[in-house]
Parts: sequence; structure tokens; C-alpha cells
Amino acid sequence: MSAVETMAPTRAEVEAYLHAQIPISAAMGVRVVEASESGVRLRAPLEPNINHQSTVFGGSAAAIAILAGWTLLHVRLNRTGPESRIVIQNTYVHYDAPIDGAIEVVTRPPDPVAWDRFTRTLERRGKARIEIGVDLEQDGARAGGLSGAYVVMLEE
Amino acid sequence: MSAVETMAPTRAEVEAYLHAQIPISAAMGVRVVEASESGVRLRAPLEPNINHQSTVFGGSAAAIAILAGWTLLHVRLNRTGPESRIVIQNTYVHYDAPIDGAIEVVTRPPDPVAWDRFTRTLERRGKARIEIGVDLEQDGARAGGLSGAYVVMLEE
Repeated sequence: MSAVETMAPTRAEVEAYLHAQIPISAAMGVRVVEASESGVRLRAPLEPNINHQSTVFGGSAAAIAILAGWTLLHVRLNRTGPESRIVIQNTYVHYDAPIDGAIEVVTRPPDPVAWDRFTRTLERRGKARIEIGVDLEQDGARAGGLSGAYVVMLEE
Repeated sequence: MSAVETMAPTRAEVEAYLHAQIPISAAMGVRVVEASESGVRLRAPLEPNINHQSTVFGGSAAAIAILAGWTLLHVRLNRTGPESRIVIQNTYVHYDAPIDGAIEVVTRPPDPVAWDRFTRTLERRGKARIEIGVDLEQDGARAGGLSGAYVVMLEE
């Protein structure tokens, strides 16, 4: 098990990967607080994501939450399988409270049964779809949520 | 009618406002192609919004589409009424095709009956909610869509 775990990218590697591959994440000041197969937590300061009300722009919040879901899949699939392509198919985001400081987003653990079905479908068909839930938070208090459907395709 | 129309902000004024008030829009390279009460069209280049697949990052696409809906309300309400606060309540975004060049987003005209009900509720209660639809496009071809619920509150 430890041999497999060393394949998982570190927190710093994931952050460098996001900033290099999705440069708007660097402009948003996204930091990777945690990135393991059990969950991903990203954080971004208010300033680069501020809106006309001095709170986090809803578009930034959606973008960071989409990144978190994507990162969870990236970490989990990198750890266990071949190269894969992760594409967002649809998202629903609800905003429950304004965030007037740093935003944190944290993935909810996928249901184990759904995850098992997802990975078996991916192996069998080379393509599968899964829903990932992400909470939006400020100082540990929930401020909204995202539910995103991601499609994963194994690279040829 | 022309006296009222001169109150509407120009395309350049809207762009300057967005870049100043929501600075991530400047980092995304968002340009205002059109901003009138009949519709808003925004455009952003691929480079600052690129992802690991060399297509537009879904988070950037969602953010630009949210901005477009917000801008339509800003333009329409600025033109006719007192200062108001526009808050996004929830969004549903679907991604139908990858965008491997500049992204354009264009608002769908709100249903006149729904708009009329919205403005009457806003006048009566000082707060009202409306759904705005936005198409995601590349070179005039539809690549996805957003439906966003915005809540508007008149400033005290």
C-alpha cells in the first residue's frame, strides 16, 4: 500500500500543476491546502477575486469549486490508473451567503458505491461519469455548494 | 425616450466598470462586445483561460457567463431605476463542446412577462429574483449554456 501511495502527487506538486496548466488559478491566488484521495481543499484570498460588493465574485467561487472537484479526480485517478482526461459536463452552484474574506472549497467524499461503479465503468468502457460535491466555506462556515458532473476518458 | 437612453452606460464604460470592480475579469481578458438593454455579449481570449487540454477552462467559462448575466441586469436597471445590488443566487452551467479559441457569451433576452413581473416586484418589495440565460459560443457556434438566478435589492 505504501508503494502505491508514493505515486500520489504531493500538495505542492498539485498546486504547481494547477498554476502551470490552468493559469487563471494562479491569477486567482489558488493555494492547495490539502490534496489526497480522501479530499481536496483549496483556498484563495479575497483581493484577486473581489467584486463590486467587496465580497468574493460568484464566478471566482464557481471556478475554484470546479477546480477542487477536478483535482480530487486527478489525484484519485493518478494514483491508481493510467493517464486520463477529465472534462466538466455540467455544474450546479448555489450561493447561500456572501464571502467577505478568503474562500475555501472542500470536496465531499464521493459515495463509495458510486465511485466503485464509476471506476469499473471507466475500466470497461474507457469512459465514465461521476458527480462530485464541493462545499464553499468562509472560516469553516458553509457559504454555498457545487455539484458537478465530470466525465473521465482514458487516454488512448 | 432618447433622454432615457443617454443614461445607459456605453460599452466602454461597462468594460471599465467590470475591470475595476471585478478585477479577475481583467485577468481573464474579458472584453465587452455589446452591452445594451437588448443584450450583452462578452468575449475573452483563450490564453489566460486555457486549461491542461488547451481549451477554455470550465471555471473561466462559468465566470464569464455569470458576468454577462450580471451585466445585463446592471445595464437594464441602471437605465431605468435607482441604485441596486445584484447578487447571484444559483447557476446551472452545461458544457456541450470544448472551446479551443476565444470564448463568447451572449445573454438570452429575458421573457418580457417575467421581466415585467420582476421589475414590479422590485418596486413593490425592494427585492426581486429573475432567471437569466446565457449561451456559450465559439465562432458563433453554441458550446454550452448557463441559467442563473439573480436577486436584485434596491439600495437603501
